[in-house]
Formats: sequence, structure tokens, C-alpha cells
Amino acid sequence: MRVLYHSLMSPFARKVRIVLAEKNLDFTMKAEKVWERRPEFLALNPAGEVPVLIEPDGTVLADAGAIAEFLEEAYREKLLLGLNPIDRAETRRLVAWFDGKLNREVTEPILAERLLKRLMGVGQPDSTALRAAKTNLGAHLDYVSYLAERRRWLAGDHFSAADIGAAAHLSVLDYLGDVPWDDHEPAKDWYARIKSRPSFRAVLGDHLPGTPPPKHYADLDF
Amino acid sequence: MRVLYHSLMSPFARKVRIVLAEKNLDFTMKAEKVWERRPEFLALNPAGEVPVLIEPDGTVLADAGAIAEFLEEAYREKLLLGLNPIDRAETRRLVAWFDGKLNREVTEPILAERLLKRLMGVGQPDSTALRAAKTNLGAHLDYVSYLAERRRWLAGDHFSAADIGAAAHLSVLDYLGDVPWDDHEPAKDWYARIKSRPSFRAVLGDHLPGTPPPKHYADLDF
Repeated sequence: MRVLYHSLMSPFARKVRIVLAEKNLDFTMKAEKVWERRPEFLALNPAGEVPVLIEPDGTVLADAGAIAEFLEEAYREKLLLGLNPIDRAETRRLVAWFDGKLNREVTEPILAERLLKRLMGVGQPDSTALRAAKTNLGAHLDYVSYLAERRRWLAGDHFSAADIGAAAHLSVLDYLGDVPWDDHEPAKDWYARIKSRPSFRAVLGDHLPGTPPPKHYADLDF
Repeated sequence: MRVLYHSLMSPFARKVRIVLAEKNLDFTMKAEKVWERRPEFLALNPAGEVPVLIEPDGTVLADAGAIAEFLEEAYREKLLLGLNPIDRAETRRLVAWFDGKLNREVTEPILAERLLKRLMGVGQPDSTALRAAKTNLGAHLDYVSYLAERRRWLAGDHFSAADIGAAAHLSVLDYLGDVPWDDHEPAKDWYARIKSRPSFRAVLGDHLPGTPPPKHYADLDF
């Protein structure tokens, strides 16, 4: 059986969960407390990060981007990167946007302030950092709206890894109650379409002990 | 003619320069002062970052990873990612290591402290931040040594994008005089092999006005 080492609030692990589900690949999940730095886990991925995927034949894959590219090459019934090199370049540009820029400017600081500080017991969220991240989030939602108004899906005519990448980050932020959907209607409409996909169902069922999601999190009419 | 928008001390732009040279693709370079946020450049890449590549047919490509993947798909005479999905997953894992982890822990803070602060006229380098980045650099050089002692090239038997990624970052750090090569012999031997490649010659000829490289920078016997 395929095994995915993940953690619930990692957008990168969520991305791989959605890719696997879109490709109809069965897997079981193991929650990894990456901060414990278990030697057995570091042997799988010296970077000490989730996701790590163990394929049924024992192949160990680390890094969300490398895993997504591997799955695209190995399981080609449903393609998620695009049908030609130029489409794939646009999908990968947007994946880098969300996993790089959005992550650095929004997801990482919000996770650090809201979740990590509490888990680690190191004080209160820094309201200045949170405010900056939320301002940045507004700009990113504007960009998602801009794309969604001009294209069927974020990278073009087809649902792609760009939609999955954006939705993985936004679903984590939405779980923490930080996404002002009503100020960004086209992004909201796009996210409603994402939420109704069967591949997204498991993510919407996530529940972090001690930190329940807001009521609208799993609601398809939010 | 193919045009690459770059900046001299961007490891991501260097990476694409080396990929293009390895694949024997001609190009001209345009230096972009990304901090000026020129509207014409933002129209090419709304992320406002180099590298951006304009292919001879006018196709605009942004993001170093997306560009490298595009070039690999479009120009297949010399392959840089690997010959099969598992090899490519290992190459991409290491590319993500260097462009993500090494960049965040070493290149970005060292560039910020040593170069950006001076360019922006906002004070002296923060010695605590520099010391932390240099400690991190030691750990990364250990990892490069670990790989170089066990494999012909960093990702396996073949020279790959993993070598290019690592060398792009380390060449920037070396230009700024921050790499303690003598404490990391296997990494040094690997970098000597990189330096002797024709594709690396242009990078070794780089000269940033006002900030000359140390004497050993372009020296093949350093």
C-alpha cells in the first residue's frame, strides 16, 4: 500500500493528497510530527519535512513538487500539469507562485503566528506580522480573482496543479479562519468549484484536535 | 534571438544561464533591476522576479524551475533532469533542497545582509544573521560532501540540474567570499569539476561593479 507521511496543516502535504485523489490512487496517511525529528523519518527525507510518499514498490519520494512531478510521469490517465510544454510552463509558474510567494508572504507567517507559537508554547501571535500577512493575502486573492475571471481554471482551460496548489494553501488559511472570501467574489466562486470536487472531500473533513475549523470551512455554500 | 532577463547575483538566473549553456542554446542577457518594478517587466512576470526567458518565437517563460522544466522538454539532446521518473524525482528533490532550504537558510540572508542593505543604503550587515547563515552554510556543505562522496554527481551517475542548482547558489556565495571550501574537501572537489565545465565559464566571468570577487573566485585551482 502507498503511504503518505503528512501533517494536517501542511499545504504541501495537502497538495499531494489532492493530486493522489485526482489520479484515483489509493493511499494511507501517517501523521508525522516533523518537529520531533525522528531518525527513521530523517532517513526517508533528510530535509525533515512532509510530505514523503512511499510508493507500493518501496520507492521513497520526498518534496511535494518532486512527488507531484513523479506522479504525473508515472500515472498519466489524468494529467494535472498540462498537455504541452507551454501549458505546463504556465502551470509550473503558478505552482511556484503559490508554493513560493504565497507561502512565504502569507501561509508561513500565519501558520507560525497562529499555530506554531501555541504548539511550541512560545507566546502570543504577533499582531503586526499577522496584519502584514493578511494584507499580502488580499493581494494574492486579487491575483486568484484576476486569473479566475479570465480563464476557466487558474492556469487555463483545464483543472491543474495550479488550482491544487492555490487551494492547498487557501484551505489551510480558511481552516484558520483567515480568508476574507466575500471581498473576493471571483476567487470565492473558483474555490466553491474546488470544494465540490471529490478529491477535495478528505481535506474538508480534516480536524485538528483543539483547533476546530470555522463553520463555513467544509460548507459548499459558504 | 532568445533573451534572458537576469541579475548577476540571482542564483535562480544563474541556474538558467547554466542550463542554457549546457544545452548549447544561444541567448542574450538583459540585466533587470527588479527593485525598480518596471511595468514592462511586471507584464512579463507579475511576480517581479528574474529570471524571465523570452524564447525565439516570443514565448514568455517565468520562474527558474518552470523555465528549466520547459527547456528540458523542448530541447532533449542533452538531458539534465535524469533518464527515468525515479532519477528525475531525486534530481527534483535536490533542486528543491538547494532552491528552497539552502536559499532560505543561507543565500537569501547573506545576499540581504551583504548586498541589499548596501544597495538600498539601509545600514550595516547584521552580524548575528550573517553568523547564523554561515553556520547553516556549513551544514549544507556537509550535505554536498556527503552526496559527492557517495555518487559521481550530486543526484547520481550523471551531471544534472541538482549540480547546477547547488553550484548556482554556491557560486553567488563564493563571489561574496563566504564559502569555507577548505573545511569541506569533497564539496570542494565537486565544485572544482563544476568550475571546469564550459557552461560555467560565463558565471565565473561575472563582475559586479563596486564589488569585485575574491581572487580565487574564477580560479580553477582554488
